[in-house]
Amino acid sequence: MNKIRLGIVGGGGDSLIGVLHRVASQMFDSYEIVGGVFNPNWEENIGFAKEIGLKTDRIYKDFDTLIEEENKKSKDERMQVVSVLTPNFLHYPMAKKLLENNFNVICEKPLTTSYEEAVELQELQKKNNTAFAVTYTYTGYPIVRQMKDMIKNGLIGKVQKVDMQYYQGWINPIIHDKSLRNSVWRLDPKKAGISSCIGDIGTHAYHMLEYITDMKVKEVLADLNHLYDDNELDVDGTILIRFSDHIKGVIRASQIATGEENNFTIAIYGDKGGFRWEQENPNYLYHLTSDKPLQVLKPGNPYLSEFSLQDTKLPAGHPEGIFDSMGNIYNGVARKIRGIKNFDGGFPTLEEGVRGMKFIEKVVESDAKGNIWLKL
Amino acid sequence: MNKIRLGIVGGGGDSLIGVLHRVASQMFDSYEIVGGVFNPNWEENIGFAKEIGLKTDRIYKDFDTLIEEENKKSKDERMQVVSVLTPNFLHYPMAKKLLENNFNVICEKPLTTSYEEAVELQELQKKNNTAFAVTYTYTGYPIVRQMKDMIKNGLIGKVQKVDMQYYQGWINPIIHDKSLRNSVWRLDPKKAGISSCIGDIGTHAYHMLEYITDMKVKEVLADLNHLYDDNELDVDGTILIRFSDHIKGVIRASQIATGEENNFTIAIYGDKGGFRWEQENPNYLYHLTSDKPLQVLKPGNPYLSEFSLQDTKLPAGHPEGIFDSMGNIYNGVARKIRGIKNFDGGFPTLEEGVRGMKFIEKVVESDAKGNIWLKL
Amino acid sequence: MNKIRLGIVGGGGDSLIGVLHRVASQMFDSYEIVGGVFNPNWEENIGFAKEIGLKTDRIYKDFDTLIEEENKKSKDERMQVVSVLTPNFLHYPMAKKLLENNFNVICEKPLTTSYEEAVELQELQKKNNTAFAVTYTYTGYPIVRQMKDMIKNGLIGKVQKVDMQYYQGWINPIIHDKSLRNSVWRLDPKKAGISSCIGDIGTHAYHMLEYITDMKVKEVLADLNHLYDDNELDVDGTILIRFSDHIKGVIRASQIATGEENNFTIAIYGDKGGFRWEQENPNYLYHLTSDKPLQVLKPGNPYLSEFSLQDTKLPAGHPEGIFDSMGNIYNGVARKIRGIKNFDGGFPTLEEGVRGMKFIEKVVESDAKGNIWLKL
Amino acid sequence: MNKIRLGIVGGGGDSLIGVLHRVASQMFDSYEIVGGVFNPNWEENIGFAKEIGLKTDRIYKDFDTLIEEENKKSKDERMQVVSVLTPNFLHYPMAKKLLENNFNVICEKPLTTSYEEAVELQELQKKNNTAFAVTYTYTGYPIVRQMKDMIKNGLIGKVQKVDMQYYQGWINPIIHDKSLRNSVWRLDPKKAGISSCIGDIGTHAYHMLEYITDMKVKEVLADLNHLYDDNELDVDGTILIRFSDHIKGVIRASQIATGEENNFTIAIYGDKGGFRWEQENPNYLYHLTSDKPLQVLKPGNPYLSEFSLQDTKLPAGHPEGIFDSMGNIYNGVARKIRGIKNFDGGFPTLEEGVRGMKFIEKVVESDAKGNIWLKL
Repeated sequence: MNKIRLGIVGGGGDSLIGVLHRVASQMFDSYEIVGGVFNPNWEENIGFAKEIGLKTDRIYKDFDTLIEEENKKSKDERMQVVSVLTPNFLHYPMAKKLLENNFNVICEKPLTTSYEEAVELQELQKKNNTAFAVTYTYTGYPIVRQMKDMIKNGLIGKVQKVDMQYYQGWINPIIHDKSLRNSVWRLDPKKAGISSCIGDIGTHAYHMLEYITDMKVKEVLADLNHLYDDNELDVDGTILIRFSDHIKGVIRASQIATGEENNFTIAIYGDKGGFRWEQENPNYLYHLTSDKPLQVLKPGNPYLSEFSLQDTKLPAGHPEGIFDSMGNIYNGVARKIRGIKNFDGGFPTLEEGVRGMKFIEKVVESDAKGNIWLKL
Repeated sequence: MNKIRLGIVGGGGDSLIGVLHRVASQMFDSYEIVGGVFNPNWEENIGFAKEIGLKTDRIYKDFDTLIEEENKKSKDERMQVVSVLTPNFLHYPMAKKLLENNFNVICEKPLTTSYEEAVELQELQKKNNTAFAVTYTYTGYPIVRQMKDMIKNGLIGKVQKVDMQYYQGWINPIIHDKSLRNSVWRLDPKKAGISSCIGDIGTHAYHMLEYITDMKVKEVLADLNHLYDDNELDVDGTILIRFSDHIKGVIRASQIATGEENNFTIAIYGDKGGFRWEQENPNYLYHLTSDKPLQVLKPGNPYLSEFSLQDTKLPAGHPEGIFDSMGNIYNGVARKIRGIKNFDGGFPTLEEGVRGMKFIEKVVESDAKGNIWLKL
Repeated sequence: MNKIRLGIVGGGGDSLIGVLHRVASQMFDSYEIVGGVFNPNWEENIGFAKEIGLKTDRIYKDFDTLIEEENKKSKDERMQVVSVLTPNFLHYPMAKKLLENNFNVICEKPLTTSYEEAVELQELQKKNNTAFAVTYTYTGYPIVRQMKDMIKNGLIGKVQKVDMQYYQGWINPIIHDKSLRNSVWRLDPKKAGISSCIGDIGTHAYHMLEYITDMKVKEVLADLNHLYDDNELDVDGTILIRFSDHIKGVIRASQIATGEENNFTIAIYGDKGGFRWEQENPNYLYHLTSDKPLQVLKPGNPYLSEFSLQDTKLPAGHPEGIFDSMGNIYNGVARKIRGIKNFDGGFPTLEEGVRGMKFIEKVVESDAKGNIWLKL
Repeated sequence: MNKIRLGIVGGGGDSLIGVLHRVASQMFDSYEIVGGVFNPNWEENIGFAKEIGLKTDRIYKDFDTLIEEENKKSKDERMQVVSVLTPNFLHYPMAKKLLENNFNVICEKPLTTSYEEAVELQELQKKNNTAFAVTYTYTGYPIVRQMKDMIKNGLIGKVQKVDMQYYQGWINPIIHDKSLRNSVWRLDPKKAGISSCIGDIGTHAYHMLEYITDMKVKEVLADLNHLYDDNELDVDGTILIRFSDHIKGVIRASQIATGEENNFTIAIYGDKGGFRWEQENPNYLYHLTSDKPLQVLKPGNPYLSEFSLQDTKLPAGHPEGIFDSMGNIYNGVARKIRGIKNFDGGFPTLEEGVRGMKFIEKVVESDAKGNIWLKL
């Protein structure tokens, strides 16, 4: 099985979303990054490609050139999928051209800057059969998928109440200073579109709600807060929602919940039980019922569904961050190999391994000799 | 900056440790897997290499061939580092040969099967200047590194008591059945060495203790439990430790703590404060003092040390598992592209992106019109 | 200092609110229960008084008799305060008569069944100087009082967003069965008034909000859910609230949050920080800021305010439930003395005390002899 | 049913243990405090009795007088049970005399200052049939009793490993200062007996272990820490324990775990499952198994045993501290009645009750009118 040829547009330099997509693409040994356009500035574009160790033959000067050059390649060489990580207003024209040229697309959210553009992309996609993913990242957690499965299988019965929260506090240090708040792109309608808070995070909560329940919201009533009269976009909002006359709920989102980091939580209640989940502790799914003790489900356990388990790579009890932990050790080794300044403790050394062996031997000896003290 | 050329020995097929090392190697865009030996069986070896999308020209039939062939290559082509993921008893001969041939080495723990072998490797390494990492994985967590830093900087004063726990329950369903317990390699002294529980996980706890405190254990007194007379290796143990006459502590490890998954915890107390940390919730570091409220430190925040922050790739509040979550979405797209059966919900689709745009528009409209109900 | 003479109206038999008030009245050695009317039925009234060990000379046949007889008593004998624990619709006439006769009053919530009645009571009270408490119980937690104090002292700056949740699930097993839901008094407008969920628990959330912030809600917009057309009262609701144009928030309450027990939570965010608190873990106050680690405050610590500390009776680390734990031991002894069936383990026996002494001696001896095994 | 006549010896003034016993004695309406000796100093003794509102006719000048005078009383008047809350060294002579005179006894732990004395008390008690409780307080928690029951009923199978921890840090600010540590009674062998840490808290852990498992520890091996050469008593210790050759465990206790408040935890593992419990969060019992999700049991739920439920006075979700919360409100009212300085917010006032009624009415009206804004 050949690796899927992946191109990336945007996400160069310090871009956090760039790191996220590159690492994610390696999680299942499925993708090879073959090229892309990381930056409109050529120096930075090519520089970044080199920095992350890519060959430079398919690093293009701009998006149009990428399309043009890739189209010249044979079916076995051409990029199969392109990830669009550019600023929001570029999603639409790029996704459109990629669809028109029959590339599969992975596009960051929000999909576009208006509903109208979004619908146009959808019309286009209907004509071909490309994969098109919008990266609502949080739906990928194994235990979220377990929740979706259990709701579908009736474990909590008919849904009767929903409550989604997405609270952050990052904009608080900015919003109270007039010049600061007028200089942030997220608060500028020209760059961010018609909404700041709801467009950025409320939409995650909304998507997740429909994702896990397989139900469609029918009506909304929203109360947004701009906090200052001269602040054009919302930084906080509460949205009443209705699935039907008797199935109601609420979506709450905020960027002024001072001190909150990324507190995205789900509470879904049905007539047979309920679920709670928190993004900051993504390995714990709480299953509530009327008559039994609270149950706590964790990834990788045999009691989970196939959908949840297919995406779990390690045994139960290993939080997914373990990849990151091991990654940091590899990074320490890389620094050593490259002669870059390394922190003391950057990776466990041979000496530490040797000492570990001594420990095991002395422990077994102490026990065998009747639990006596031994020097190490 | 070219990627570092990484070879891998072992870790093929369903090997969990294989996945862990491959993904970790991609976390910082620093390594390229150029080849290796994944399996002693050639069919499985080459098959696995293809499955994970590697070129097959540097997949070797065995370890000796790898050394021989790589030695023929130029400095710019030769593998720079080799990860040793083979069964424990192979660590020593392979690491030895790699050192003798001046490869950098990343070796799984336990380093060897005896202290004697370990010392021999150490002697060898002194002669060259290769990087040699033993993958005590848990030391890579950003917040563990923060703890190490804060202890070094005196935040908890002079360490006066330590308590390390590593509790698992996985061997419980095996240990009570005579035939089962006689068939598990971890309980077979020929394959596992002189210890099961301490060798596998007690050693992690011990290493972590010295890693974060920068202190050396002077003496041990151990009480191990084999649970059955015919079970040769320990499955549980408590180890009294002394740093000095007045600085004491305990390491506790178990494989029969039924229902525990990977419950590795740290408690370190000094004369000015203390720390608690749990591997299953690796993003939370608890800092205790005598006179102030408990403080909870989380990765990625500006109040952390440089050592901790250098390894954090995403903003505060994004648990490290976010890579895994995004990885699962990429995996869903890969399945779609490859025409493999996909679960409903395997990745967020274009339709979902479109609906998200409608949501944002209606929410802003509801608010603007005075908080009224609007259909979605 | 004589104990305050307390009368109780209602709260007999299995009444939970009765237990709560009786025990609470003993917490500070301040009150003596001198009499009351526990039940409209004389047999049950007098029977209950005997069961809880009261003298029967001031157990009255009805509320009017209580007033009449107590009024005959001298200033040094007369009840000083009366607790009104009767069904909601009786609060108003009883409280009114108590005020008219210059008794201090402790009244369960909701105060009355209509705003009009409530205002009338307020007018009455203005004429005398009696104490009149409405038992919004949750405001008594030491750490809630700490939160109130810290908000007043500007620790989180100017409040900019509030979010109160009170979720229960107890009505779920009732609401889906037509005959059941028509037979519950809480869902009967004649007995419960105009609201079930908001009247019972939403009002707690609302009161707590104004209590801790010292701010007044200016406007509300509510969306309630009755779940079934034939169910007259709300069982769930979300209430948008405004303190001013730019200070907003939400109160969420539910009786159909299946599996929730008494999940009352607070989140208050200001421009300098925030607080989170959960009633089911009432000893933990979470203080969030933009730039420092999360702080967790716990009762009884010297870093707390005088207002919080005055009500803490035990050292830090002793959850308030410790009274209950000790109470159960006293209860076990009472059963033994009274010759009532006792569970094995109902209280720790002398034998257990003896064994404890042996343990201490052997432990010290083992240590003194160089850490050797000793039989117990 | 008359209240049981309770006498109290010790526990006057600021004594925390005094408050604990007095409140506990009122939890089930079973006891009346009829007298006692609160302090060897007569002024303080009688002063304290008045302060807590007791009649003074049975406040005695010393313990011997109490015995003498109470013995003169009739069977229907005489104290039925006496609580011994005096310093440790007085437990033995007082308990002895109480037994000799056929009083029921509730005695604080440790029972005596030596095993020998303890045995003597036991011999004495065998001759009569008095109730004698040693107040190992923590065994009274409803959910601890549930754990005991479930272990007895085989829910976790045969116990195979136990781990008890009791960590405090209170002695840390004292121990490092030579003059301070020489002035604390707990570190003075004459007053505290042969042990500080183990005698005070290790013994709780030990008792709890035998209480919940119904098993007897056979052997101990202890390693204690005095931290300084001139400190005669232990302030920390780890104790290896054995129930049998293959059933082992550990008890860990510390007073130098800086920043810990009262961190008493239990972990018990059997061949079918395990339990975890933490005293600082006493309402949560964690039940682990090999093959099912973690279950979290909470007090007051119908799925619990009769033994656990008999001691639960309030519905599920009301933490036991609710009594304390309500008690603080009663305290606020008492201050008002007595004209003592009250904090603003000391109890919820009538005004607050009135406002609550308005809230309910406006909420229902907003909903009924189609979810519109209404002024409050």
